[in-house]
Amino acid sequence: MIRTLISSLSLGALLYAPCIAQDATAGRLTARQVIERIQKNVGVTWHSQTVDTFKAGDPDTPVTGIATTMMATYDVLERAAAAGDNLIITHEPVFYNHLDQTAGMAKENDAVLAAKQAFIEKHHLVIWRFHDEWHARTPDGIQTGMIRALGWEKFQNPHDDHLFVIPETTLDQLASNIKERLGIRTLRVVGDPNLRVTKLALNPGYPGFPAERHMLQRDDVEVLVMGEGLEWETIEYGADASAEGKHKALVILGHIPSEQSGMKDCAEWLKGFITEVPVQFIATAEPFWPAK
Amino acid sequence: MIRTLISSLSLGALLYAPCIAQDATAGRLTARQVIERIQKNVGVTWHSQTVDTFKAGDPDTPVTGIATTMMATYDVLERAAAAGDNLIITHEPVFYNHLDQTAGMAKENDAVLAAKQAFIEKHHLVIWRFHDEWHARTPDGIQTGMIRALGWEKFQNPHDDHLFVIPETTLDQLASNIKERLGIRTLRVVGDPNLRVTKLALNPGYPGFPAERHMLQRDDVEVLVMGEGLEWETIEYGADASAEGKHKALVILGHIPSEQSGMKDCAEWLKGFITEVPVQFIATAEPFWPAK
Repeated sequence: MIRTLISSLSLGALLYAPCIAQDATAGRLTARQVIERIQKNVGVTWHSQTVDTFKAGDPDTPVTGIATTMMATYDVLERAAAAGDNLIITHEPVFYNHLDQTAGMAKENDAVLAAKQAFIEKHHLVIWRFHDEWHARTPDGIQTGMIRALGWEKFQNPHDDHLFVIPETTLDQLASNIKERLGIRTLRVVGDPNLRVTKLALNPGYPGFPAERHMLQRDDVEVLVMGEGLEWETIEYGADASAEGKHKALVILGHIPSEQSGMKDCAEWLKGFITEVPVQFIATAEPFWPAK
Repeated sequence: MIRTLISSLSLGALLYAPCIAQDATAGRLTARQVIERIQKNVGVTWHSQTVDTFKAGDPDTPVTGIATTMMATYDVLERAAAAGDNLIITHEPVFYNHLDQTAGMAKENDAVLAAKQAFIEKHHLVIWRFHDEWHARTPDGIQTGMIRALGWEKFQNPHDDHLFVIPETTLDQLASNIKERLGIRTLRVVGDPNLRVTKLALNPGYPGFPAERHMLQRDDVEVLVMGEGLEWETIEYGADASAEGKHKALVILGHIPSEQSGMKDCAEWLKGFITEVPVQFIATAEPFWPAK
């Protein structure tokens, strides 16, 4: 509910925002101008230290179309280019590390990197990351998108958008429902399949072990629904909690499915103040499939 | 073959090693003395910086039995204590972080940590980690155990125990075979299921993205069989390599199944120079099960 209210307000305000017409010559809206508009509209004091920067391409390229995505994989770039989108707004890195540093791999003449860079250059793509500031939004743009995708708005704690109370079910059934709802091929679970659960926390992505254990420490959290975590950290902790007889479990969605819908919402949000060019969400494919 | 030769030599030499009788009063072999024997026998110059230290319990406790394991989870500790083993030799951390630091969680009055510590204290368990030096052995104790468990000795490159050439199969079939052979519930794959493959690399555990990409960069590696990796690093890289049409794929075992058998071998190796108390391997359960 909080999300809906704020989205409506933002959309309403933005339709009348003067910045739309001022910063673009007709037909020549550049990638840099799009990002400036995002910065004006996101409602966050931009962090001085942020990964939300251009990762590839010339920011002054005129934009023909915008694709938002969870992770700008090679597959996503191909689909964006085929659709005529040359500005890709990605939540996760392009070049396989948090800071998108390429020097080390370039020195190794890495062929995977080289092919991706060549594709970007050939199609004059511009890639910009939208991570820290989209999370920093109130409410968090990723969290909001995931809650909507899960259909959990009605179960949400009004004071904390990480917490939910759902009708009682088993861990097994909860995991199957989430798997089906989000279309995940390889959803993994830690805990007793027959555990009866009602109190959930949702921590998409990779917030790290301290944030994940702080959720599991709470009396009002039985199941942590998470993106990914290291096996000698959160996973061992969850397995131990279960073995100790505590009423706790983990549902591990995978990083991409756990945040994906937040970037779908991002495309809708952008359409509120980018009207000169088409804007679409391109789903990042889940990288994994399960061995039979 | 290299492994078999060295194991036989070590075993032969150790049966006559004078250290066996010298450092233990009959019936009073302590945990500290067991570790001193390991240090004498492992054939590695002990690193000054190593995580291979006591993690819990009193090192001067007389040992009643030794359990080796991949990860000293609560479940493993219960099974060890029930079997009368009070020295647990674990490859991975006990307390949910690489350095087994507990101060932060103790300050939070973490209940999962407290229950594990209470169990250790109640049963007078001693836990020692055997990670860096077991890997540093020639050949690597973990790698050797995994190659044996996979039945890949005959396919191994004689100059590099990470590389294998197997009879041609599909990625799909390879993954299914490994899953069945190692008894893994949630083995995940990245790449084209129909890719015909013959050249493999095996990197168990979590060696990190640079080590993993260096394997995938090689012309003599088509499939990296790995433990775990971050989704915006090795996983995105593997997915991109595949999308770019490169003849590459990932088979992701999970951290525990990817190293487990190396600690089974460790128990056998210990029996060569620990004869006063029983030594057994306790398998760490795979923490995950797949949602239906």
